[in-house]
Amino acid sequence: MYKVLISYDGTHYFGWQKTITGPSIQEELEKAIHRLTHETVLPEAASRTDRGVHAEGQVVQFRLEHEWAPAKLQLGLNAVLPKDIRIKAIERKEFHPTLDATGKEYHYRICQGLAQDPTLRLYSWHLRYTLDRKKIEQAAKHLIGAHDFTAFANEEEKDPVCTLESIEFDGIFRIRGNRFLYKMVRNLVGTLVYVGCGKISPETIPEILASKDRTRAGITAPAHGLYLHQVQYGLK
Amino acid sequence: MYKVLISYDGTHYFGWQKTITGPSIQEELEKAIHRLTHETVLPEAASRTDRGVHAEGQVVQFRLEHEWAPAKLQLGLNAVLPKDIRIKAIERKEFHPTLDATGKEYHYRICQGLAQDPTLRLYSWHLRYTLDRKKIEQAAKHLIGAHDFTAFANEEEKDPVCTLESIEFDGIFRIRGNRFLYKMVRNLVGTLVYVGCGKISPETIPEILASKDRTRAGITAPAHGLYLHQVQYGLK
Repeated sequence: MYKVLISYDGTHYFGWQKTITGPSIQEELEKAIHRLTHETVLPEAASRTDRGVHAEGQVVQFRLEHEWAPAKLQLGLNAVLPKDIRIKAIERKEFHPTLDATGKEYHYRICQGLAQDPTLRLYSWHLRYTLDRKKIEQAAKHLIGAHDFTAFANEEEKDPVCTLESIEFDGIFRIRGNRFLYKMVRNLVGTLVYVGCGKISPETIPEILASKDRTRAGITAPAHGLYLHQVQYGLK
Repeated sequence: MYKVLISYDGTHYFGWQKTITGPSIQEELEKAIHRLTHETVLPEAASRTDRGVHAEGQVVQFRLEHEWAPAKLQLGLNAVLPKDIRIKAIERKEFHPTLDATGKEYHYRICQGLAQDPTLRLYSWHLRYTLDRKKIEQAAKHLIGAHDFTAFANEEEKDPVCTLESIEFDGIFRIRGNRFLYKMVRNLVGTLVYVGCGKISPETIPEILASKDRTRAGITAPAHGLYLHQVQYGLK
């Protein structure tokens, strides 16, 4: 089994998962593996990133019948993959990409000011106003730890309890947790942006969590500011 | 007269200057001004950036017959300009964009390693090897000051003497000087990359300068890593 670290520019893709709707990272990788090795395998990922979301450190696994030296496999796949998907590393390792993951870190890039940096227009959320970092830090404190995050999920979930380790903001939100619900990161960012521009007070975060009501939290931040930064496979 | 600070993603443009070959920044700005004000003016820039080159701080001037408040003009132009061209600031000022410029700073972004960061593929030059920073610094010392830079120009120039103030490298080359010859920044970067990977020794830089022979220096670095970072209008 191969453990593969990949990064991609999600702009032109309908997300990780193969779909008939449009191009996906999973399908591009499947095609590249087939073109290089003539084997048909469907790679599995640690996180099914949504349409338009980027990845700096997505983790993927697949098996091949015939052995390949990892370095040769990396070089070969990068030669046939589109330029907006890159394999950063490959190693031989037995693991389960989702069940063995102990944590994830997402980054969300904000561009503040009257005019957005044009080279970041596909990679950041443009806000015309400046966010209040102190208020965001106050709100973030209420989100750290184990909570029922139903108010921050766009779908009903069997187990809505997640543990957030840290939330930092310096123009980029850096959010670490053990697991995340559907669209939870983008809902956290949308809510913290509402806090940062004064639409929601930091002190109402505990109420929003307790309400389990999606309509109490802020908007879902747009996909193109979000990056899957890292998947951790350390000790639980 | 208006002094306009603009930034652009040069990927889809044939450079600053209006041309029949394809879209240009100058033409897009001309069209936007006409659409907003119904006046026909051809804006002039501090630097005629080449095809594919980006700008963080290009400086442009134009005149309008009817007065506009600068803030309103900025808002209006950003509303009609393509998203890859943004106006960062406008002020009323009498000046000459090229003759009054006392210096320029260019940035050139390098992406080192086996796989390029996919979100930087249009904004950096990908090198599979790691550059030797110390060698680059040694070579840069020989380039600082006033020199005849004929060996680093792709066209014959009337006055080939330029003064380089500083060259820094930390993954991005930051090059400041009073003026630059045609393709000089990209030739400096191509040469310093040759130094950083051992193809040219830092000690041969004085010989290359003295030779006035373009073939002695390194290659012209590709356009898509280059940014016009800032134009200075301070004291000479």
